[in-house]
Amino acid sequence: MLKGFNYPLTPKGESTLNPAPPWYYSADFLDIEFWAQPQAVAALLPPGLDPDRAANGRCNALFYDWQFSGDHDEYLDPARYQYREFFILVDALYQEKPVSYCPYIFVDNDAALARGWTQGYPKRLGQVFQTRYHAATGKAGPALAPGSRFAGSLTAGGQRVAEGVVTLREPITDPSRLSQRPVVNLLHQPRLAADRQDQPALHELVENVPHDVKIEQAWIGQGSLTLPVCRGEEISDLAPVRSGRGIRASMAYVVDDLKTLKDLRK
Amino acid sequence: MLKGFNYPLTPKGESTLNPAPPWYYSADFLDIEFWAQPQAVAALLPPGLDPDRAANGRCNALFYDWQFSGDHDEYLDPARYQYREFFILVDALYQEKPVSYCPYIFVDNDAALARGWTQGYPKRLGQVFQTRYHAATGKAGPALAPGSRFAGSLTAGGQRVAEGVVTLREPITDPSRLSQRPVVNLLHQPRLAADRQDQPALHELVENVPHDVKIEQAWIGQGSLTLPVCRGEEISDLAPVRSGRGIRASMAYVVDDLKTLKDLRK
Amino acid sequence: MLKGFNYPLTPKGESTLNPAPPWYYSADFLDIEFWAQPQAVAALLPPGLDPDRAANGRCNALFYDWQFSGDHDEYLDPARYQYREFFILVDALYQEKPVSYCPYIFVDNDAALARGWTQGYPKRLGQVFQTRYHAATGKAGPALAPGSRFAGSLTAGGQRVAEGVVTLREPITDPSRLSQRPVVNLLHQPRLAADRQDQPALHELVENVPHDVKIEQAWIGQGSLTLPVCRGEEISDLAPVRSGRGIRASMAYVVDDLKTLKDLRK
Amino acid sequence: MLKGFNYPLTPKGESTLNPAPPWYYSADFLDIEFWAQPQAVAALLPPGLDPDRAANGRCNALFYDWQFSGDHDEYLDPARYQYREFFILVDALYQEKPVSYCPYIFVDNDAALARGWTQGYPKRLGQVFQTRYHAATGKAGPALAPGSRFAGSLTAGGQRVAEGVVTLREPITDPSRLSQRPVVNLLHQPRLAADRQDQPALHELVENVPHDVKIEQAWIGQGSLTLPVCRGEEISDLAPVRSGRGIRASMAYVVDDLKTLKDLRK
Repeated sequence: MLKGFNYPLTPKGESTLNPAPPWYYSADFLDIEFWAQPQAVAALLPPGLDPDRAANGRCNALFYDWQFSGDHDEYLDPARYQYREFFILVDALYQEKPVSYCPYIFVDNDAALARGWTQGYPKRLGQVFQTRYHAATGKAGPALAPGSRFAGSLTAGGQRVAEGVVTLREPITDPSRLSQRPVVNLLHQPRLAADRQDQPALHELVENVPHDVKIEQAWIGQGSLTLPVCRGEEISDLAPVRSGRGIRASMAYVVDDLKTLKDLRK
Repeated sequence: MLKGFNYPLTPKGESTLNPAPPWYYSADFLDIEFWAQPQAVAALLPPGLDPDRAANGRCNALFYDWQFSGDHDEYLDPARYQYREFFILVDALYQEKPVSYCPYIFVDNDAALARGWTQGYPKRLGQVFQTRYHAATGKAGPALAPGSRFAGSLTAGGQRVAEGVVTLREPITDPSRLSQRPVVNLLHQPRLAADRQDQPALHELVENVPHDVKIEQAWIGQGSLTLPVCRGEEISDLAPVRSGRGIRASMAYVVDDLKTLKDLRK
Repeated sequence: MLKGFNYPLTPKGESTLNPAPPWYYSADFLDIEFWAQPQAVAALLPPGLDPDRAANGRCNALFYDWQFSGDHDEYLDPARYQYREFFILVDALYQEKPVSYCPYIFVDNDAALARGWTQGYPKRLGQVFQTRYHAATGKAGPALAPGSRFAGSLTAGGQRVAEGVVTLREPITDPSRLSQRPVVNLLHQPRLAADRQDQPALHELVENVPHDVKIEQAWIGQGSLTLPVCRGEEISDLAPVRSGRGIRASMAYVVDDLKTLKDLRK
Repeated sequence: MLKGFNYPLTPKGESTLNPAPPWYYSADFLDIEFWAQPQAVAALLPPGLDPDRAANGRCNALFYDWQFSGDHDEYLDPARYQYREFFILVDALYQEKPVSYCPYIFVDNDAALARGWTQGYPKRLGQVFQTRYHAATGKAGPALAPGSRFAGSLTAGGQRVAEGVVTLREPITDPSRLSQRPVVNLLHQPRLAADRQDQPALHELVENVPHDVKIEQAWIGQGSLTLPVCRGEEISDLAPVRSGRGIRASMAYVVDDLKTLKDLRK
């Protein structure tokens, strides 16, 4: 009996990219609200999702410094499991309900990439960095204080794909300002068989069902984002018309489930 | 209409990890034959494959410096598509027929990882290096000549997982010495839905169907391989009882198909 | 007039690896006390430093997640300036005075490597990771609480060179427990000229003079360290006979000076 | 007695970044001739070098896939010693004599960085890639034939700093077309001591003295280069006005000496 959740499957299940769920996460993150051309957002939506006209092209760009663990203290092997992530969420509607859809996401770790693909996050590899907060502050480590700035950047395929800055204004005291739309993804796995390349093995709308979400040390202020034009990349079609609020916070949550909304194959 | 073969799917299909097949490859490689404990090999085989008793634990360890292209000159963007690979093939039987099965494989590039998963290669990320041959030889660049040595190494999760050396003896004049068993893989994609985690989305025995295989500059000699014990890794269970012949050569081939032998789900 | 502190020197001084001092730093770190064979420590000391017999082989192993800045907001370009570090300090005497000497140090960033070489830190590149603390804790993010564990690891040249764990017991209330010996380094720059390869361009004992040191969130507990035997590496000659206390804290400081104690060239 | 050429110095001299010379090299490379604004070239020259008016801003951009060895088979540890490099040479005059000066150079390996600094090459880290030639050619591996294209790219600090392409036309039969000007560098090492930061420890014009240079498989054709504008980088001030011939070849040589032309400190 071979064991493992993702590849590879082996007798003891230790070599697998990921242990079976539940999966535990904690992070520091930057969240930058921005507005893209509404038609650029609409063009990215899979079947089953509709443009959210009222949102008028609203998106979020997020930089995460993640720590992951399964049930076997994987957080004590950070060389294998710690990672950094950048992704974009665009506002959309699923059966009239406001949701977010993730068209682009990049991580610097294979275990994270594998978990993402299992959830419909279309992950590629990238180099992601964000300014860190350390309890001992100074000119190199911004305090959690009005005017402090935190920057993030993404490089993929050797090109600078995204840059953002959050300038803090005040702590968030009203937790409703941190509420997010549910994330609906396109779970997709192609077929290589010559006669089935137009019949993907998986092609479903899925909804993420995170739980035990905790947010701490949340500050809000102004966001700023650029998505430079890069050869062979379409992400700059979402280049911000304008940026909105920026958030910097810490969070933790648990993933152990996924809900299929609709199988998109005929 | 969203386009792309692997994630992500986008309006123009440029951001995708990989263009649709055909996929073109060329490489320099090291191939080291070795014998593991037969029961360690048997323990790795998926349902549908049987131990090849006559092979007595025979395996191959391979280091590849790859160049990839689709139909749009992807070889001119080596930062995105060039990659290095280490993998192991173990001898097995499929319905009495001699085949190879790949239990472990590591690459340093996400496009390669995605293509691999589509073919049943259980790829993880690793740092892979091999000694290079340059037409201008010297003390840093071994000639293709008797006694020349070429080394390879793999690091994954920050641990040195494999090391090998090939010492050349003579050019291969009989091409039959380069023939390989067909590669049969376990194509696997798990389900995250809480009530279906024991029902993978994909779980099939598949056979690779490479074509237009060319091999050049092939030399044969002695191989040597070590698979050190690493925390959280099972690959050292295949640690060589003894090593056999080593090969160093260049090769090219095309991939555009995959044959499903058997759906392993009930 | 060319400008820049380190290489390269250019008309505007922007391409340089580092701006001129002052250099600002903040970090989270792990500090693990251990005892090596006293003769292994003594064998590493440069001329001018004497073994500290009373220390009996005492050393410290340190994992740092650093953020750096000069006077131009370099902390907002973390892809260029943020870095991770592992180093060892061994107890020694300089003219009877207790000091620390750094025989081994690894970073993952070139600006940090260049600054280090200017201070006599013998930096090489490595991949360094440590478990992170996030304000939102959970199974993936340990709290600052008794029993919490933080791990660190170093990989260099593809080999796992060091691993450590700190298990927290209590906050440090007495700041004297955080006091450190001054760090004395060997500032060294070789000469390549064929007739001067035995006459280094620089070969000096130097003392680091950090200032504005701040430490926050310091917890103390038990340390544990391993230095595995690696091919082509001598660091394992310091393999711990036993480990002592472990510390996890945040810190910030400023570097803008270096004191030459002694020119070691004849 | 501590041993080692570069940092760190240790009892057995194994941990050092580099063994003592001689240093052996072999490589595949791309060499792209281009013309920058002459005043941009002049602005980069250190004291002691004069603009070469007749060259009219002529430069070369070079992508190298290197293999290095010392006298102890270092080429068998490619994870530690193999590397990739991009650099620019600008035409200049030293005492009326035509020479090349290297203002910018990037490598992906610390041993290479350390050797470079010993020779006056102002190396930073970067990710460098070039299209490879494999003896087995195909759509992914261009042949050495008219019309074949080889591309190179450099990323540093997460930004795409340079891109080039060489299109082959014909083999080089006249070796004089491969002759190069001697390379004169600025050997520089700053002082961190607060009162000596304007008095570098090293500030010399030096001439490289490579020997046993071999070139094989040289093809010539057309070159093409771009140096995009990047934040915090001055290299784009050399952006090509036009590109000239391109070369692709293999080479090997030995380094064991350096000639000081002039100490530039008062």
